[in-house]
Amino acid sequence: MQRSPLALPFPALLPIAGVRIGTASVPYKAWTRDCVTLVEFAPGTAVAGVTTRSLCPSPEVELCRAKLPGGHARGLIVNAGNSNAFTGAAGMAAARAQAARVAERLDCSADAVFSASTGVIGVPLPIDLAVEGVDKAHARLGEADFLAATNAIGTTDTFPKAATASAIVGGKRVSINGIVKGSGMIAPDMATMLGFIFTDAAIAPALWQAMLNDAVASTFNAITVDSDTSTSDTVLAFATGAAGNTALATMDDAGAEALAAALTDICRHLAILVVRDGEGAHKLIEVTVTGAVDDASAKRVALSIANSPLVKTAIAGGDANWGRIVMAVGKAGEPADRDRLSIRFGNTLVAAQGAVVPGYDEAPVAAHLAGDEVSIAADLGMGTGRARVWTCDLTHGYISINADYRS
Amino acid sequence: MQRSPLALPFPALLPIAGVRIGTASVPYKAWTRDCVTLVEFAPGTAVAGVTTRSLCPSPEVELCRAKLPGGHARGLIVNAGNSNAFTGAAGMAAARAQAARVAERLDCSADAVFSASTGVIGVPLPIDLAVEGVDKAHARLGEADFLAATNAIGTTDTFPKAATASAIVGGKRVSINGIVKGSGMIAPDMATMLGFIFTDAAIAPALWQAMLNDAVASTFNAITVDSDTSTSDTVLAFATGAAGNTALATMDDAGAEALAAALTDICRHLAILVVRDGEGAHKLIEVTVTGAVDDASAKRVALSIANSPLVKTAIAGGDANWGRIVMAVGKAGEPADRDRLSIRFGNTLVAAQGAVVPGYDEAPVAAHLAGDEVSIAADLGMGTGRARVWTCDLTHGYISINADYRS
Repeated sequence: MQRSPLALPFPALLPIAGVRIGTASVPYKAWTRDCVTLVEFAPGTAVAGVTTRSLCPSPEVELCRAKLPGGHARGLIVNAGNSNAFTGAAGMAAARAQAARVAERLDCSADAVFSASTGVIGVPLPIDLAVEGVDKAHARLGEADFLAATNAIGTTDTFPKAATASAIVGGKRVSINGIVKGSGMIAPDMATMLGFIFTDAAIAPALWQAMLNDAVASTFNAITVDSDTSTSDTVLAFATGAAGNTALATMDDAGAEALAAALTDICRHLAILVVRDGEGAHKLIEVTVTGAVDDASAKRVALSIANSPLVKTAIAGGDANWGRIVMAVGKAGEPADRDRLSIRFGNTLVAAQGAVVPGYDEAPVAAHLAGDEVSIAADLGMGTGRARVWTCDLTHGYISINADYRS
Repeated sequence: MQRSPLALPFPALLPIAGVRIGTASVPYKAWTRDCVTLVEFAPGTAVAGVTTRSLCPSPEVELCRAKLPGGHARGLIVNAGNSNAFTGAAGMAAARAQAARVAERLDCSADAVFSASTGVIGVPLPIDLAVEGVDKAHARLGEADFLAATNAIGTTDTFPKAATASAIVGGKRVSINGIVKGSGMIAPDMATMLGFIFTDAAIAPALWQAMLNDAVASTFNAITVDSDTSTSDTVLAFATGAAGNTALATMDDAGAEALAAALTDICRHLAILVVRDGEGAHKLIEVTVTGAVDDASAKRVALSIANSPLVKTAIAGGDANWGRIVMAVGKAGEPADRDRLSIRFGNTLVAAQGAVVPGYDEAPVAAHLAGDEVSIAADLGMGTGRARVWTCDLTHGYISINADYRS
């Protein structure tokens, strides 16, 4: 698979005390690269998570949902090459068996072991390979090699994706790393996004979960490649506490805002990296909607624009087709008034008050659209609601990746 | 534009007493073909209509919405080559001026003149050409030539689309014709669907509107090419009463059910013809959802499947990718249970009870998918709700039509 033209280099990540990683290879597919990732967390590690909204989730997602209320994690196991989704009782048995083996190896409760799988669907995860993968990865547990882990959780990602940040919390410097895979496809099945975030900050699980929920809403839940939702999407965030700060319990504690801001930055960076690896993407598109009746309405309008095939193909063609933006605003079903609507491409106002601006000059817009980062802004003129989402263009590459093979 | 591989021949239409048609050419674009269509209806003609749900509609749509409650029509004027959408006050002035000229020529109230326009957006309909078009078309008014009208309302349609039916109402034989344009694109702008239905039946406007609402829900509102909604979509239905039946007033009147059934048949046929002319379409896809908690839920799930780019590309590739159907059911947000879900392609059960069926043989599915009419069925196992929608595959042709040019 050709590296995305929008790829960014892998960043220099910070060490995170309390996190050990081992990766290993087992033949889920005819791959020689590592495809099983085991992460061991120090006792006391808090965990927060957000899973797909799909009502047909994988067993791993169901297990995450069941375990997250416990708030603590000692282990994470990730399989690439088999998503274990839509595999009935056999798949659930395999997921449970693998988590049990991790618990045995790490000497902890299976309730503290979190699982995620990505890859082919409809084929139960082979229990023997899944258990063998745990043993092999456990034998290689050591200082956290985040690049190795990022490569091992990937499927058809065209580049490894990570982000890092730090913050001062209660007088201590804390570090946060995030890694993510998606949204390449593992032929012939679904794109799945898996994101994992690691910090050495000490924080109560409930507050960590609240911070993650907030961060995800404006980041991972504000990206779209093709409007399709995987059965396996999962973001898990682990806080080991090894930085030694007094554990954060409320947003009023010193440093809580800083940690939340760093977490949101990480999530935004990771989310945009996923779009940058969107199938067939040649342009990153930022859609900003302002002037909606409220933020939720703004987000629905922004997603209507970002998911519109006609908008996405226009951007692919470098076409300043503001009529398609009007169309997408109109179809969103949110309060809008054609005669108050204004539209910008880049810094150029194209349409306002229900019509193209007088003396509209397309040249600066065409120059903006020729770049690989495009911004579209729509102001609805109705209120103060605003939202920002990211997507990519819709190209022949998307069709080729998704249609031009037989399973 | 190459004729769609899914095109059907133009049918032999019935004459409709009380309808006269004239078409004419004016230079909205550099076309020599006719692009203005004037229809004159006998006094007493009832009208019903359904317009786009877009909140940013064209002036023509706004005028239709305002006039429909009157229930009667004497004239219809259709422009192709300029949609007059998003043109502010200038566009509204042009639409009003054109309708006024029709009213003058037909010696009727402007409230009885209905308008529709399709084509480039953001450019106000030129008033002088619009009025000239009325005069020219009026000079050519004569026996209804539905093929000429179908060609004149088209934009980049690759074949003319029509349907016909008849019914016995109150002992009289009545005829219904329907013509439709869409969903080719008029570069560089939006696809617009315009449908016009003509019958010589006599019927009260309120009942005619109720019949049309019912018919549209399961036909025009059950098709999707790319999930995008035009600012100008309009279906208008005219009943001249010239057949001489006692005017239908309620569904209990003799023949009302027959007329409603014929109307629904016409609408379904026209709607599927639009999908057959979908941009880049090589396969017509029928999606049936059963076992939902209710019909509305079934329709949302069916549209989630039909709008999924991953499903549509899989069908384009002839790929029996049932995992993408699971994904689309899961993302619909409707009550569903992975372990009760079953999926068929054609007549072959592929997955049931949360997993692929034992001994699944892909050969008959691959044979079905190799044809140009594909059926997908999902049973949710939750209740008795059902729905059927139609779409087409997503191909390189769609990208080429919508991205590979500059405006």
